[in-house]
Amino acid sequence: MSDFLIDEELLAAIDMGSNSFHLAIARVDHGEVKKVASMSEKVQLAAGLDENRNLTEAAQQRGLACLARFVGRLGSVQPKRLRIVATNALRQAKNGHEFIQKAAEILPKPIEIIAGREEARLIYLGVSHTMENSGRRLVIDIGGGSTELIIGEAFEPIHTESVQMGCVAFTKAYFQDGEINLKSFDKAVNAARKEISGIANTYREAGWDTVVGSSGTIKACRQITVNMGWSNDKEELTREGLEKLKDKLLKHKHVSEMEFDGLKEDRRAVLPAGIAILFAVFEVLKLEKLVYSDGALREGVMYDLLGRFQHEDIRDRSVHALMGRYNADAKQAERVVATAQQLFDGVAEKLDLSMDDSDLLRRAAYLHEIGLAISHSGYHRHGAYLLQHSDIPGFSQIDQNYLSHLVAHHRRKLRSDTRVDVSKVGGSKLAHLCLLLRLAVLLNHSRSDEMLPAIELTALNAQQWQLSVSGDAKQWPLLVADLHDEQAQFKHWDIELNIQSEQFID
Amino acid sequence: MSDFLIDEELLAAIDMGSNSFHLAIARVDHGEVKKVASMSEKVQLAAGLDENRNLTEAAQQRGLACLARFVGRLGSVQPKRLRIVATNALRQAKNGHEFIQKAAEILPKPIEIIAGREEARLIYLGVSHTMENSGRRLVIDIGGGSTELIIGEAFEPIHTESVQMGCVAFTKAYFQDGEINLKSFDKAVNAARKEISGIANTYREAGWDTVVGSSGTIKACRQITVNMGWSNDKEELTREGLEKLKDKLLKHKHVSEMEFDGLKEDRRAVLPAGIAILFAVFEVLKLEKLVYSDGALREGVMYDLLGRFQHEDIRDRSVHALMGRYNADAKQAERVVATAQQLFDGVAEKLDLSMDDSDLLRRAAYLHEIGLAISHSGYHRHGAYLLQHSDIPGFSQIDQNYLSHLVAHHRRKLRSDTRVDVSKVGGSKLAHLCLLLRLAVLLNHSRSDEMLPAIELTALNAQQWQLSVSGDAKQWPLLVADLHDEQAQFKHWDIELNIQSEQFID
Repeated sequence: MSDFLIDEELLAAIDMGSNSFHLAIARVDHGEVKKVASMSEKVQLAAGLDENRNLTEAAQQRGLACLARFVGRLGSVQPKRLRIVATNALRQAKNGHEFIQKAAEILPKPIEIIAGREEARLIYLGVSHTMENSGRRLVIDIGGGSTELIIGEAFEPIHTESVQMGCVAFTKAYFQDGEINLKSFDKAVNAARKEISGIANTYREAGWDTVVGSSGTIKACRQITVNMGWSNDKEELTREGLEKLKDKLLKHKHVSEMEFDGLKEDRRAVLPAGIAILFAVFEVLKLEKLVYSDGALREGVMYDLLGRFQHEDIRDRSVHALMGRYNADAKQAERVVATAQQLFDGVAEKLDLSMDDSDLLRRAAYLHEIGLAISHSGYHRHGAYLLQHSDIPGFSQIDQNYLSHLVAHHRRKLRSDTRVDVSKVGGSKLAHLCLLLRLAVLLNHSRSDEMLPAIELTALNAQQWQLSVSGDAKQWPLLVADLHDEQAQFKHWDIELNIQSEQFID
Repeated sequence: MSDFLIDEELLAAIDMGSNSFHLAIARVDHGEVKKVASMSEKVQLAAGLDENRNLTEAAQQRGLACLARFVGRLGSVQPKRLRIVATNALRQAKNGHEFIQKAAEILPKPIEIIAGREEARLIYLGVSHTMENSGRRLVIDIGGGSTELIIGEAFEPIHTESVQMGCVAFTKAYFQDGEINLKSFDKAVNAARKEISGIANTYREAGWDTVVGSSGTIKACRQITVNMGWSNDKEELTREGLEKLKDKLLKHKHVSEMEFDGLKEDRRAVLPAGIAILFAVFEVLKLEKLVYSDGALREGVMYDLLGRFQHEDIRDRSVHALMGRYNADAKQAERVVATAQQLFDGVAEKLDLSMDDSDLLRRAAYLHEIGLAISHSGYHRHGAYLLQHSDIPGFSQIDQNYLSHLVAHHRRKLRSDTRVDVSKVGGSKLAHLCLLLRLAVLLNHSRSDEMLPAIELTALNAQQWQLSVSGDAKQWPLLVADLHDEQAQFKHWDIELNIQSEQFID
C-alpha cells in the first residue's frame, strides 16, 4: 500500500480540548483539507480535575462516552489517516495514563498528548492554511485549559507559546459559583496579565500586522459584539466592543441572568472567565482589534498529517534542528542510521515492524549522541532527558517518550527490569528497536568510514536472532569483543543473539 | 582583606587521586607557581571500592589518616589559598558523601569532587604551565581510576576527555592476584582499547605535534626504560622502549618477581595494568614517543586558583559560554544580575554572606533561564538539570550542585520540604541566596528597561527581612500582586518578608 495519500480520501482529527472535544473529517482536494463533517461536545475535562489533579471518574466517563460517539462517526476513515490529540487537561492530569488506557479500548488509534508549544504550532498551521496570507500574524487561541499565542508569517510560526490560562480553569478559580462581580473579574484579569507578562515584551518587540483569534471563547465574544452592534463594519472584534461586552457582563450578578444576543447555552458558564482572559490579552499586548478564524487545532492536525503523507514531515526537520543545536557528529549519525536501516530490513517482517517503527529507529539513530553536548559521562541519559523534555515540533509526548527510551538504552548494560519498563511504554516492538539501535551503534564504534565486515541480521522468531558476520575478524578485534559482550546484554532482555562466523570463535 | 594574592604568599593543592593522594605547596613568584613542598601517599582509594561501589571502612581510614598528615604540613597556608580536589574514586563511590563529611572534620576546606572533563582541563593547565610551548600537544595522564586525554595549544585545551580506565581499577579487574600472563595482559589491553576507541578518530583527526605524559604510571614506565637503556638520547618514552618493557614484563609470572631498574615498591602492584593501558594508548593513537612532564593535576589546580585571584576566572567564561550555547536572553540576565547584586548588598553583612556567595548568586542570575532552550514548561527544572550534569570548566560538582539548586527554585511555589533539601546541600546560606534570586527575578518580570520602583532590602535577622518599595505602586500592578504572593512563598521557607510602602496596601 502506498504511503501517499490518494486525493479525495478522507482525513480526520479528534481534538480533546479542556473544554470541548471536536471531531473533524475532511477530504483532501488539490492539496487542501476540505472539511466534510464536524462534531463538537462540551466535555469540560478540565473542570473534572480534582484538587490532586486527578481526572474524576465522572469526567472520564463523559470523555469516553463522547469518544465512543465520535468513533461511530468516523466511518471509512483509515486509522493511519486519523490523529487524536489531547491538550492541557490531559497534560495536567496525573491519572491521564489511566484514562488513555481506557480510551484505547474504544479508539482505533492511541491518543497523543501534545505539549503546549506543539499545540501552538499546530494551531498556527491550521490558521495559516485557512486564511489568506496577510503579512505577519499574531494568533491567539484561548482554550479551556491553556492559551496559545503565536507570531508567524505565511506558513511559518516564529514565536510559539502556551500559557497556563483557559476559560474552564479560570472559571473554576474565579467564578466557581457562577457569581459575577468586579472583584472576581479583576482577580481573573490580574492572573491572566501575570501569565502573559513573561512573553509580552518579546512579542511586542517582534510585532505583527494582523491579529487573528480562534476557538470558542473568541468566537463567542466576537459573535456577541457583532450581534449587539458593537463591532465595526468588517465584523471584527474591537477593543471598544470588548469593553462594552465587559461593562455589560458586570451588570449581571450571576451567569444564569446573562442576556447576550448570540450566546450559546454551553458557553454561558465559562464566558466571564473567557472575557477576563481576552481583556487581559488585549491590554497587555495593546491590541486594537482581531479577526476570527475558523481554522484551529484540528485543522492544523490534519494539515500536519497531510504533510507527513506528502513527505514534508516536520519531524525530520525537527530531528535535524536538534542535531544542529546540540552539535551532533552528523557523519557518525549517518553511519549509524545506515547500519540501523540495514539491520531493520533484515528482521522487520519477522518482528512485525512497520514503516512507523522504521521512522522511529531512524530518528533515534540520528539523535542518539545529542547528550554529548551536556557531558560525555552518562550521555545516553542526558540525550534521553532532552528528548523527553524538549519542545520538538511535530512530535507528540508519546513519540518523544519512545525516542527517549531508545536513546537511554543505546549503550551500557541492559538490565531485565529496564526491559519491563520499555515494554510497558512501547511493547516488545520498542525493546526490539532498542536492540537494533544498540547493534548499529556497536558496529560503528570505530567512527570511521573504513569498511565494516559484511553483516546480516535475521530473526528466527522474536526471541532468537542471528547475526552473520563475514570477513576477517582479525581486522576488527574490538568488534569481536564487543559482540560477545553484547550477547550477554541481549540475554538480559530475553533475546538469544547468535553470532555466526568462522572467525568469531573465542 | 584584598582578594588579590600578594606575591610570595603560599598556595596549596591536595589531589585525592584514586591511587595516591598528593599535597603540593607553592609560592607565587612573578605570576608563576613555584613548588616549595610536596608530599605523596599511596592511599589506593580505588582499590577500596567494594562490589557495591562503596568505599570500605579501611580505605576511608587510610584516606582520612593521610589527609590528617597533609593538614599537619599545611602550616600557614590560608584556607582560601587551598583547594582540595577528588577524582575518579570519589566520583564512583556511592558513599563518597559520607567520607567527605568525615573529612570535613579535619580539613580547613571542603573537598571538591571534580568531573572527568574538568580534571582533564586542570591537568592540561598544569602541563601547559610547566612546559615550554611547542605547538599542538596531546597530553595523557593515566591515573588510578581514570585516564585523561587532552589536545591543546599553548594554554588552551581543545579536546578534553576522561575515560574509565586506570592502573588501580585495571589491576583489580585483570591482575587481582598479582599473577602476570599473556591472557590477562591481552584482556587488559583490549578493555583499554575499547575505552579509547570512542575518541580515537576525533583525536587523530585533530592531530598534534608533541605528546606529553604525566602522573605515576607514565613516570615509572619512562624511568624504567631510561634506566634499562631502552630510551632514546632525549630520554623519551618510545614505542620501542614500551614494547621491550612489555616483553620483559611478560617474562615474569608474578608482580613480586619483577625486577626493573628504577621501579619503586609502591608502583610494583599496579605496573602491569599501567603498562597495558599505556600500550593500548600507544597502539590506538599510533604514538611513536612521549615526553614526561612533572606538572599535572595539582599544578593545574594551583594555576586555576591563581587565575581566580587575578580575576581571570575561568568560571565566568564558562557561564557566558553556557548562556551562548542555550541562547539565553542576555539583556534580561543582566537586569536580574544587577537587581540580585543590589539585594545581596543590602543583606550580606546581616546574613553573613561572603564574596564567594556573591559570585555564586551572580552566576546563577546569569544562568537562571538557560532551561528555556529545552522547553518553556518547567524550564527552571531543565536549567537545574543542565547545571547539575553539564561539564562546566572551572566548576566542581558541589559548585554545580549549588547553581542547580538556585536555578531550580528561582520560580514557582516553594515547599517547606525543599527548604530542608536545599539546606542539606548548602546550609541556610544557599536558601537565602535562592530567595534573593527569586526576588531579583520577580522584580524584573516585565523584562523591560523601564524604571523599577526604588527598592531596598534589609534583614533584621536571618528570619526577618524587609523590602522597602518607594514610588507609585499603581504603575506596577503586577509587581504588587507578585510581591504579595511571594510573601507566602517566603513563609514556607520560614522567612518573614515584610513589605514596606504606603502604596502597597491591599
